[in-house]
Amino acid sequence: MTGPLISFLTDFGANTAPAVCRGVIWSIAPDARILDLTHSVRQFAVRDGAFLLWSALPYLEVGVHLAVVDPGVGTERRGIALQTGRGDRMVGPDNGLLVPAAERLGGIAAAHSLEHREFFLDRVSTTFHGRDVFAPVAARLASGTAVTEVGPAIDPADLVRIEFPEPRAASGGLDTSVLFIDAFGNCRLAGDHADLERACGPTAPGRQMRVQVADRSWVVTWQATFGGVPRGEPLLYEDADYAGLALAINSGSAADAFGLSLDVPIRVEPARPR
Amino acid sequence: MTGPLISFLTDFGANTAPAVCRGVIWSIAPDARILDLTHSVRQFAVRDGAFLLWSALPYLEVGVHLAVVDPGVGTERRGIALQTGRGDRMVGPDNGLLVPAAERLGGIAAAHSLEHREFFLDRVSTTFHGRDVFAPVAARLASGTAVTEVGPAIDPADLVRIEFPEPRAASGGLDTSVLFIDAFGNCRLAGDHADLERACGPTAPGRQMRVQVADRSWVVTWQATFGGVPRGEPLLYEDADYAGLALAINSGSAADAFGLSLDVPIRVEPARPR
Amino acid sequence: MTGPLISFLTDFGANTAPAVCRGVIWSIAPDARILDLTHSVRQFAVRDGAFLLWSALPYLEVGVHLAVVDPGVGTERRGIALQTGRGDRMVGPDNGLLVPAAERLGGIAAAHSLEHREFFLDRVSTTFHGRDVFAPVAARLASGTAVTEVGPAIDPADLVRIEFPEPRAASGGLDTSVLFIDAFGNCRLAGDHADLERACGPTAPGRQMRVQVADRSWVVTWQATFGGVPRGEPLLYEDADYAGLALAINSGSAADAFGLSLDVPIRVEPARPR
Repeated sequence: MTGPLISFLTDFGANTAPAVCRGVIWSIAPDARILDLTHSVRQFAVRDGAFLLWSALPYLEVGVHLAVVDPGVGTERRGIALQTGRGDRMVGPDNGLLVPAAERLGGIAAAHSLEHREFFLDRVSTTFHGRDVFAPVAARLASGTAVTEVGPAIDPADLVRIEFPEPRAASGGLDTSVLFIDAFGNCRLAGDHADLERACGPTAPGRQMRVQVADRSWVVTWQATFGGVPRGEPLLYEDADYAGLALAINSGSAADAFGLSLDVPIRVEPARPR
Repeated sequence: MTGPLISFLTDFGANTAPAVCRGVIWSIAPDARILDLTHSVRQFAVRDGAFLLWSALPYLEVGVHLAVVDPGVGTERRGIALQTGRGDRMVGPDNGLLVPAAERLGGIAAAHSLEHREFFLDRVSTTFHGRDVFAPVAARLASGTAVTEVGPAIDPADLVRIEFPEPRAASGGLDTSVLFIDAFGNCRLAGDHADLERACGPTAPGRQMRVQVADRSWVVTWQATFGGVPRGEPLLYEDADYAGLALAINSGSAADAFGLSLDVPIRVEPARPR
Repeated sequence: MTGPLISFLTDFGANTAPAVCRGVIWSIAPDARILDLTHSVRQFAVRDGAFLLWSALPYLEVGVHLAVVDPGVGTERRGIALQTGRGDRMVGPDNGLLVPAAERLGGIAAAHSLEHREFFLDRVSTTFHGRDVFAPVAARLASGTAVTEVGPAIDPADLVRIEFPEPRAASGGLDTSVLFIDAFGNCRLAGDHADLERACGPTAPGRQMRVQVADRSWVVTWQATFGGVPRGEPLLYEDADYAGLALAINSGSAADAFGLSLDVPIRVEPARPR
């Protein structure tokens, strides 16, 4: 008999805070299988956290998903628990962090506000709700508590949402922007391979594309893998994490090379007009 | 039936050394639930490790706690196992690392020197006692071996101790110092909220305090949360990890901004005399 | 009843990729005890990964060992599963990563090419075989699938191999080179203590040796532990991880101090001729 799965993502960094939360979880649900997704989300970057949950959770079995990227801790923002169409339960702040992943896991079947304090630690601090509120609630849900028990129902339409940027096809090219930058400087762009093909026609490994950022442009090859271009050279590719468009430098940082940061607009078009 | 809890803290950094110790633990206690507290303690910083154990362990269930920050490995320093009043067992070097946490977990009920080599790996290296001595002893304790079996009893009064700095109220202010600096540059100070109020009178969110370091001083707001001050502004607050005084910059590094390092004296007083 | 052991090493870094692989493993083998060795191998550094597996795995119980350092992902390189003489199963790319450790665990008893796609995820990406191929195969092996079932047998002599550098005794000294550099800048050298003694005569703590790099040389003390030399001073020692020769600076970086990088030749000889 294996215990319930609790995945866990935060922006707490390399200190004891994630471990203290795991300790609280195991003190309530000692047989939980805790799967740390990452604790290196850029601090307070709610959209980065939402993107990472959205990209990772489909590969996990149905479980409880605890996520804390919470610049509003100690303010009036709500804590929430969601039930997904697939059967997962998600716990975290009501700041948009959980919603994109929940929608990818079958949609939000129910949303509840964390108000029943008997599921919290006895003393709730003003700055560490991961330990005092979210971890104990996640552990209770993993141990059989229903999402309906943690507090009153919320209309899912009233949850705080964040928008992921969307691409737009225009004049034979794709107007996109930087959705996420990973630790290597690889840049995930808004949209996916199908969006690119709708805008620019069929792509095949080796096709030359033009990438325009502000008033500069570069010719970049569409490839299936980093190894398809020489070291130090850029490529456009379909990212496996994300099944979306991405821009990288083989053994380098595309963010540095192209001067990119989040939400910088990028136009991709065929290197020569069709 | 869930296995025993073994928490694990070291200064080994991001390499395979913590994993090798976990491998040794599981080869002896395959059902142990291993909870890595952190392996990013500043190298050889025994007091940092002692502080982190002291702050984290009260949130964990009763268990075995393995900690290795051990600048004296290979010298004559002893290895020890402690039994706490709460029922925990702690294993590590006799350099003060374990004592503050043990005292917070109900006090030291028994202390034993690690001398019975049948609990060690067959070959004990001169530099990796985490793997060869401490991990296997922790695994044995988790599997039912009593702390009395690992070696002769030691008088707890003979254990090496390290002092955490203490604050002192003087002339309407609090003379404190830097106890610990985390990865974000947030500075934990000696003493707690009650010490500050005894020295300076009641604090409420928004109260202006003067923070003096050497011959410079700043006005800093007492707040409950980082979000209580604008980005880039300093705050004094009660740290949730620690339930103690702390000095931070919202989205910045207080250590950098105030030029602080461990044990630097800091005076906190009301911004204007009462 | 404890679940099977799966160790896991990659160069994926601090992102969600290792967690996604763990999620895939647990979706197939929910009771597996997953032991993360490290995910901080230098990117695409196959020999570093091979060295770390070689040094760590002998301390683990017999299990399944999943390792992904895979610059050739998406090219024609094979995926393989090995059976070791000790009973372990190893899974990863056929680029030399697995072979040195397998040889240390009793030798390669069988090798099979990963070709039976029913053990992979339904959709296999071009860039994330860790998730889509290697993790699911490792989970199947841990759940009872035999290594013979994953694909056709390969002659072990046909596996890709990488050579670890070897030392050579010459003219009363040892000609060695840098095998591996850890995060602290400690340098593991080709060969072990016995090689040094064969070349230079008996060593005892305190013996002065001459270390020559290109046209510079330094006198360095042979010691059993870092604490045997003052802070900032160099030492030669037998590394506990590796049971091999190593060069370090007490509380410093030998790589920086001696200007070392991988494969730089180093000569070690007695500081004065015998």
